Amino acid sequence: MTDRRTRVPRRTLLTGGLAAVGGAAATAAALWDRNPEPTPPTAPDTVEPFHGARQAGIATRPQGHAVFVAFRLRDGVTADRFAAVLRLLGDDAERLTGGVAALGDTEPELAPYTARLTVTFGFGYGMFDALGVADRRPEGFRPLPAFETDRLDPAFSGGDLLIQVCADDPTTVAHTVRMLTKDARSVMTVAWAQRGFRQTTPVIGEDATPRNVMGQLDGTTNPHPGEPGFEDVVWRRDGSSPGWSTLVVRRIRAEMETWDAVDPLSKEMVIGRRLDTGAPLTGEKESDEPDFDDVDGLGLSVIAPNAHIRRSRLDDGRRIFRRVYNYDDTRAADGTADMGLIFASYQADISTFVDIQRRLDEADMLNRWVTPVGSAEFAIPPGCEAGGWIGETVFT
Amino acid sequence: MTDRRTRVPRRTLLTGGLAAVGGAAATAAALWDRNPEPTPPTAPDTVEPFHGARQAGIATRPQGHAVFVAFRLRDGVTADRFAAVLRLLGDDAERLTGGVAALGDTEPELAPYTARLTVTFGFGYGMFDALGVADRRPEGFRPLPAFETDRLDPAFSGGDLLIQVCADDPTTVAHTVRMLTKDARSVMTVAWAQRGFRQTTPVIGEDATPRNVMGQLDGTTNPHPGEPGFEDVVWRRDGSSPGWSTLVVRRIRAEMETWDAVDPLSKEMVIGRRLDTGAPLTGEKESDEPDFDDVDGLGLSVIAPNAHIRRSRLDDGRRIFRRVYNYDDTRAADGTADMGLIFASYQADISTFVDIQRRLDEADMLNRWVTPVGSAEFAIPPGCEAGGWIGETVFT
Repeated sequence: MTDRRTRVPRRTLLTGGLAAVGGAAATAAALWDRNPEPTPPTAPDTVEPFHGARQAGIATRPQGHAVFVAFRLRDGVTADRFAAVLRLLGDDAERLTGGVAALGDTEPELAPYTARLTVTFGFGYGMFDALGVADRRPEGFRPLPAFETDRLDPAFSGGDLLIQVCADDPTTVAHTVRMLTKDARSVMTVAWAQRGFRQTTPVIGEDATPRNVMGQLDGTTNPHPGEPGFEDVVWRRDGSSPGWSTLVVRRIRAEMETWDAVDPLSKEMVIGRRLDTGAPLTGEKESDEPDFDDVDGLGLSVIAPNAHIRRSRLDDGRRIFRRVYNYDDTRAADGTADMGLIFASYQADISTFVDIQRRLDEADMLNRWVTPVGSAEFAIPPGCEAGGWIGETVFT
Repeated sequence: MTDRRTRVPRRTLLTGGLAAVGGAAATAAALWDRNPEPTPPTAPDTVEPFHGARQAGIATRPQGHAVFVAFRLRDGVTADRFAAVLRLLGDDAERLTGGVAALGDTEPELAPYTARLTVTFGFGYGMFDALGVADRRPEGFRPLPAFETDRLDPAFSGGDLLIQVCADDPTTVAHTVRMLTKDARSVMTVAWAQRGFRQTTPVIGEDATPRNVMGQLDGTTNPHPGEPGFEDVVWRRDGSSPGWSTLVVRRIRAEMETWDAVDPLSKEMVIGRRLDTGAPLTGEKESDEPDFDDVDGLGLSVIAPNAHIRRSRLDDGRRIFRRVYNYDDTRAADGTADMGLIFASYQADISTFVDIQRRLDEADMLNRWVTPVGSAEFAIPPGCEAGGWIGETVFT
């Protein structure tokens, strides 16, 4: 006989009916505290700090899995109501990234598996207007212009609030996204959600560049957190919005069916790099600087005028910070690929992204095999210290 | 000046037009062999053997990611033609699981990242009839009967050929699925594809039971490869089809919205186990055997008559081997969850699954919160030795 179970109102369940189960809920609060905070089974190096001057999930070593969820404000939501929800979402994020169940967590057993979980918040351009806080919108932040090569699907575009959830385990990501979505529902609907993955250290080795679904080493010239200048690339250091960043999330479909028809050497010319090593066509190693002035025996540029790596650089040296994920949602009966990149780009000033994208839009050879099908931009507020909350500089 | 590039027909690219690019393809074969077999960057323990008496991907320690793809035969395909494609698919699988690009691989750079890749093949019931090899269908293999609680969507049901692709990296899975799909296209269309994930060793520790999206430890009583009796659970040892198995793939949606409304103690009664430790309600540890005869102070069964763990056991001790993945495809504007399990069950005789599912279908309390929305069954042929191919016992 098992005594510790005698107080359970089991009959309510056995006699069936969802209402009966609801009746049992009255006892839940009292019983719940027998397991208030599960001990995280994982090592401390699987917890990424939530607090700080900058939000986590940007300079954080990229985790293997990401879900980007954009929300749209419901009609009539006030700034006060939104700010209250934002504080709740921030509390959820703080707890879950620390391995502790969120306040309203109905699957608290999943909380301890932090897997380097980060949660990053961003605000859409229109949110500042809709909530009467246009004066708090960071200087220079504006919607992207239209680009010639864009074929945007509203199902992957826009949004008032972005939540970027990253972790090394997709079960952790799924639980976190669900918890946050439930707490966001009262004031927002889901505009879109995109799921992505990328190669990580166990597969490619430490500090190695991951490959994308087209086979390319992707992000060779990306600035590295900690290196000189990184902070200036990503965050505003002065002006009216110190500590802010901007995030552009572009869904870029890879036209795999036609890309497959391109021979390997032509693929390398399109990019300007070797497929195997990632070395520029003028060099031997991935880390070699491309020599854009180099010419071959016929006097032609070795790296073509419209090669991707040439078009993706600005003459004045301004840079973006990519935190890119692959996606594969292929389902078509004929097997046609629905694969590509969730191109997440962080930069202090959104004009840096716009200027690079304009150069690509005009003349990048790769345009024939990649199509932007989703686009959204967000202002990324600073982080917060313990006791504070993300967005406090906007709504207080 | 870079001499090694002078032979490149770059003008064909610079003058534009997809046809021009196609023209360059003529040189591809000659140039391709400069990098015929990239050296796998990863350790040998990331390669799972392809050859053997049994197919890989069953007793293999479950990888973190899986895609299950089911194909449907095109009209008029002959057994010879199908067998030829099957040999090609087997060759692809052998190469890719070994870290070597497939013969027609257009992204060979992705091949070295094996990440414990396995590829497992299965045949649908109807395939044996359609290709005139009904006499090779394993004895006792038959379609599942209808179940009361099923709400099956054709978009996730049926199929003539199943390919289960598993690896610890989803980029590897995506590349492999694409390669196989391209080589299958001439004789088959894609019936459905399902993507799943599960917690693995780095997150939960070695030999630990993973949790599903409902928070439960999932698979506590699963037989372990290597333990006595495992072989008999999974494979036919005698009779007319030695070395064969059967696989049932069920998409089981978790009704998260209503499950969230259930208090923790009632959840435990529904399952018959504690949520935190996974211990049966009559025990202290996950590994404790449930005591189904135990009663409480009121004389009621501690593990309810219709608790999930009681209903999922057969009196005669026959068992299945689960190799289960979580899914999360949530996209709805209101955030309604589309999450659940891709329940992959291997068993020597499909009747074992049917008998368990019938017991669950009749009276499992959990039925109120889980809905089978997809279902398919496949006969799993034996493995092959070097020089052989999966399916050789059917088509030769």
